[in-house]
Amino acid sequence: MKELTFVLAPDSFKESMTAKEVCIAMEKGISSVFPTANYIHVPMADGGEGTVQSLVDATGGQLYDKEVMGPLGQPVHAKYGILGDGVTAAIEMASASGIHFVTKDTKNPLITTTYGTGELIRECLDKGIKKIIIGIGGSATNDGGAGMAEALGAAFLDKDGHHLPRGGGSLDKLAKIDISALDPRLADVQMIVACDVTNPLCGEKGASHVFGPQKGATPEMVLQLDKNLAHYADIVKEQLHKDVRDIPGAGAAGGLGAGLLIFTQATLQKGIEIVIEYTDLKQKLADADYCFTGEGRIDFQTKFGKTPYGVAKAAKENDKKVIAVAGCLGEGIEALYEEGFDAIFGILPGVDELETVLAEGSQNVESTCRNIARLIKLSL
Amino acid sequence: MKELTFVLAPDSFKESMTAKEVCIAMEKGISSVFPTANYIHVPMADGGEGTVQSLVDATGGQLYDKEVMGPLGQPVHAKYGILGDGVTAAIEMASASGIHFVTKDTKNPLITTTYGTGELIRECLDKGIKKIIIGIGGSATNDGGAGMAEALGAAFLDKDGHHLPRGGGSLDKLAKIDISALDPRLADVQMIVACDVTNPLCGEKGASHVFGPQKGATPEMVLQLDKNLAHYADIVKEQLHKDVRDIPGAGAAGGLGAGLLIFTQATLQKGIEIVIEYTDLKQKLADADYCFTGEGRIDFQTKFGKTPYGVAKAAKENDKKVIAVAGCLGEGIEALYEEGFDAIFGILPGVDELETVLAEGSQNVESTCRNIARLIKLSL
Repeated sequence: MKELTFVLAPDSFKESMTAKEVCIAMEKGISSVFPTANYIHVPMADGGEGTVQSLVDATGGQLYDKEVMGPLGQPVHAKYGILGDGVTAAIEMASASGIHFVTKDTKNPLITTTYGTGELIRECLDKGIKKIIIGIGGSATNDGGAGMAEALGAAFLDKDGHHLPRGGGSLDKLAKIDISALDPRLADVQMIVACDVTNPLCGEKGASHVFGPQKGATPEMVLQLDKNLAHYADIVKEQLHKDVRDIPGAGAAGGLGAGLLIFTQATLQKGIEIVIEYTDLKQKLADADYCFTGEGRIDFQTKFGKTPYGVAKAAKENDKKVIAVAGCLGEGIEALYEEGFDAIFGILPGVDELETVLAEGSQNVESTCRNIARLIKLSL
Repeated sequence: MKELTFVLAPDSFKESMTAKEVCIAMEKGISSVFPTANYIHVPMADGGEGTVQSLVDATGGQLYDKEVMGPLGQPVHAKYGILGDGVTAAIEMASASGIHFVTKDTKNPLITTTYGTGELIRECLDKGIKKIIIGIGGSATNDGGAGMAEALGAAFLDKDGHHLPRGGGSLDKLAKIDISALDPRLADVQMIVACDVTNPLCGEKGASHVFGPQKGATPEMVLQLDKNLAHYADIVKEQLHKDVRDIPGAGAAGGLGAGLLIFTQATLQKGIEIVIEYTDLKQKLADADYCFTGEGRIDFQTKFGKTPYGVAKAAKENDKKVIAVAGCLGEGIEALYEEGFDAIFGILPGVDELETVLAEGSQNVESTCRNIARLIKLSL
């Protein structure tokens, strides 16, 4: 009998395991039944939290640490990765400018800035990177990416030629954007923006209205921020001749989507598609008999661009069998059967505290995958 | 392709579903994948709680209700069943004389009696029953089955010819057992005692020492009860010419094991074996492709006579594939792979309160079995 090949392509199980650790647990379980099978680990992500880690793990790259400016101006330690090819970097904006850096009391989208994200990009330029994958979920900001651009050399000036204070709350005073000192290396670097939302920059479906409140914006602030971003878009159009206002995704991450489109060579793409591409998932699936995927939670939302959905779709393009495991199975998983999932199993062995469940994730994935493998073997 | 046949032989999931309800949930899940397969429901039990219900359900029998004397003399509503054959009854002693009828404050094995269990047996005799399956777990008593025998016509007298008070605490005054009025129909009725313990009547491994404390016996009471049962055994040997003292299982249910051996045509047998026999499980397995079993909890103890173990063993005798599901997977389930289990899955979809988990048992069994079936289908 030909040896089976298992492609293991899970997302991380949030607060429990990285995607790489899930791969290891899956192999442990399956290989106890099929000890001589082939196992291909493809730690995955969907462009959100854990994307840098997974891309680094999947490509044999490396993680780096860099102190940058946090959303409130405070120094924060941000992580970024350089992939195995040595010329592609991966950044999560949240690592520098994320909502987790502000508290209930300090969150204030009038003043939070994406400056630190710009510093991370600059760091990549300094390292000779030619392509930057940037995940932009989880931001604390609403500055249209102005802070990011400032860190890369752009100047945002008021009518008297003074630099604006940072944060989306000051953009109403924007009179002039000076890009004469914008880092010239940006012209040669491809920015691949992992963006799953289609919100425009302004208006009722724009950054401020939709995402402002969760960043601490009061109704009055939402109106002000939206007006400011509209003014910013007007200045950009007038002075930089770019019209990004209505581009789907321009409103992502408080308008960082727009900022990247304005100041860098950016293309917006679904996070999971980017990860599939840069992990070579499809090539790795070519010889697979079974593809295992999984995530901390699988439910009806999984089909809206989450990792297991993307993996299942990629696997089904090649008629591979797809099995998913999850710490939590939510409502509506039956709908996933039509999206390429052959079977979906929960991993919990019993009623337990969340803390215990998170701590025992690896052994539960291992045990569940062992039983799945035993069931597969039974029918071979 | 030949239609598949699934034998569904789970135990009940305690506090969540009867075995029959588990069968129904299993079929719901599997038949959504194999709609034209054959499904054979064999609700199982292991001689403990739920045995009457399962035997009734498995054979198309009927449940009955009877008011009898509880362990403290109070009236209680006991259930018993008559199996589909119309001549076999099933009783659980706990239904009449169980520990759940006493409280922390009222439990007292000096006075608790098996009288109600005897009344249930008499009721069966009145109905023309020829064979009684009796499960004897969960007793509140330590009377050597004297109460049971009394309800069936035996008299337990002191040296003055007075009837003894009920309960194991009075047996030290036993001088004479008068069986002249013992129900003569007992001679023609086979008592099949579901008994998984091998404790003798007396001594350190006897009823009083091992099970007395959990029924409320203090160390002094344990010594007294043990001495009383020894005296009882002496009188039985002397007057009835039966030596039951050291028969394995005589010490079960506070010596009810002994009592049944003394006063009825009893044979002791492992609970699961009895249930396998009276549900015709083996015959029903003959044409099966897959056997599904399960229980609320599966762990390393499962191999000590629990239902899924017995089912797996029976199925493996015929080389059937065995899949188990459980609400809770405890430590050491890997050891069960060598006992005939092909795969074992937990059914929990996520972290939840026990109450919720118990309430949602059916849908979780259904969903898990659906995914197992999908995995089976994948490999066909």
